[in-house]
Amino acid sequence: MDAVEVEVVEVGLRDGLQNLDVVMATADKCRWIAAEHAAGVREIEVGSFVPPKLLPQMADAAEVVAFARTLRGLSVAALAPNLRGARDAIRAGVHKIGIPVSVSRAHSLANVRKTPAQMIEEVGSICRMRAETAPSTKIEVGLATAFGCTIQGTVPEDDVVRLAQACVAAGVDSVALADTVGYANPSQVRRLFTRIRAEIGARLVAGHFHDTRGLGLANVMAALSVGIRSFDSSLAGLGGCPFAPGASGNIATEDLVFMLESSGFATGIDVAALIDARRLLEAALPGRPLYGALARAGLPKTFRQAA
Amino acid sequence: MDAVEVEVVEVGLRDGLQNLDVVMATADKCRWIAAEHAAGVREIEVGSFVPPKLLPQMADAAEVVAFARTLRGLSVAALAPNLRGARDAIRAGVHKIGIPVSVSRAHSLANVRKTPAQMIEEVGSICRMRAETAPSTKIEVGLATAFGCTIQGTVPEDDVVRLAQACVAAGVDSVALADTVGYANPSQVRRLFTRIRAEIGARLVAGHFHDTRGLGLANVMAALSVGIRSFDSSLAGLGGCPFAPGASGNIATEDLVFMLESSGFATGIDVAALIDARRLLEAALPGRPLYGALARAGLPKTFRQAA
Repeated sequence: MDAVEVEVVEVGLRDGLQNLDVVMATADKCRWIAAEHAAGVREIEVGSFVPPKLLPQMADAAEVVAFARTLRGLSVAALAPNLRGARDAIRAGVHKIGIPVSVSRAHSLANVRKTPAQMIEEVGSICRMRAETAPSTKIEVGLATAFGCTIQGTVPEDDVVRLAQACVAAGVDSVALADTVGYANPSQVRRLFTRIRAEIGARLVAGHFHDTRGLGLANVMAALSVGIRSFDSSLAGLGGCPFAPGASGNIATEDLVFMLESSGFATGIDVAALIDARRLLEAALPGRPLYGALARAGLPKTFRQAA
Repeated sequence: MDAVEVEVVEVGLRDGLQNLDVVMATADKCRWIAAEHAAGVREIEVGSFVPPKLLPQMADAAEVVAFARTLRGLSVAALAPNLRGARDAIRAGVHKIGIPVSVSRAHSLANVRKTPAQMIEEVGSICRMRAETAPSTKIEVGLATAFGCTIQGTVPEDDVVRLAQACVAAGVDSVALADTVGYANPSQVRRLFTRIRAEIGARLVAGHFHDTRGLGLANVMAALSVGIRSFDSSLAGLGGCPFAPGASGNIATEDLVFMLESSGFATGIDVAALIDARRLLEAALPGRPLYGALARAGLPKTFRQAA
């Protein structure tokens, strides 16, 4: 029996770096991207197209995209929170634009100063612009705070359903559910992914989990069990959210790939090469904390890649 | 619909303390036990009955058992690796004896200087002694290194099956599968628990997972999905194994209870009280590392206990 294939999308260069108090050099970002590409990663979100004044870390986004596009077979993604950013991303040559839409009204206002409904209008504008200027560029919305919000608290599942439907109506290619603040649990993950899948079908493709409260990988297994086959993660677990204080961020790419491969899911990614790639981060971000359990303990003697 | 009940067994006083380089004062152990009992924990493995020269940490085991027995509704368990220890445990008044049997021959020899077959003989002697002297005392074997071994590497599943059957034939009440060195993955957990359940039925009751490589809680969810309803854990993730160097140990009790309760499984345990109980460890073990994600990030605003 062939192993089921699962896609792992590296988002550390965007979600991991955006909250750091130090700007990573462009050359270090390119080395990081090249190392993950060499390890077998086939989609990387390489940055955000936002005003450099707001986020100096992302000022080199176009340059980083240009480098990433030279790597064979790599899907180069970038985040854009508005029409202007999406235009810049397309001009830079991305294959895919990620648009964050917070389901929590409070989080949306805090993060982008727009309500969820206003963000859906923005998504519609981006989709129309894309149709005219770059029809082969993919657009994915990540529904942030889909499992709860540190400001608003509970996020009704009906709100997630409505926004997922609105995204599809606006013309996006795909939708991801994001546990931006690490509130999700495995039962909730199974329930919400199943419900959204029933509403928008195969356009629901991905899960974005944070390990803030230790449940990140258990939540991945829950989403896998209901048919989700694409997950975001961040090398060494870099990242977090400015509105989710005091906690580790994304699930660690090397831990995720280890879990998937050892469980028999084929990612096409060499786990040992990912562990090696952490050294680039250690060198580029001296003194900054790195997360992830596998690198500390090492691969089991019994480990075999799935493919 | 009533929530499914899941038992969480605190093993930090045994598995957590046994590798520490500092002996915890008896009074601190008793405070720890009392705090967990007050939080709702209903089974605690409070120590090991082994020669004090080998493990000074456990020299007060009988005293700690005597204290724990004063707590209403608490099942007091202790580990005993041989007949002599089991006699001492019964004399001290434990409700339950845990016997570790390593499936890996190499690990068994390193740990207790006996082969697995010799350990099964010992288990038989303990069961006969129990029948004569304390028929109401329960006996559970934990099959250590059931998912792989840092010395031997792969542990054949057939070996786990044979030892589980031999334990039942020897007269034990229950069997647990232990991932002593943190090698297990969710697919393997589902497969092995299902297989052993098919062989020995409801006598397979518990899972003991370490979080060495970050998969501890995902492995719990996997075992839950095939009907296992009892799990060992250690407050603040204390613990490890002398033959599994350089890594965090048991899954953290507070993270486990948080995952279970937020997923709708009723443990009867108050998560917030567990987080508070960590302060006892901070005070009793100054400078020693504590693990666990929940205490660092805090409970979600959306959290509700299941029961």
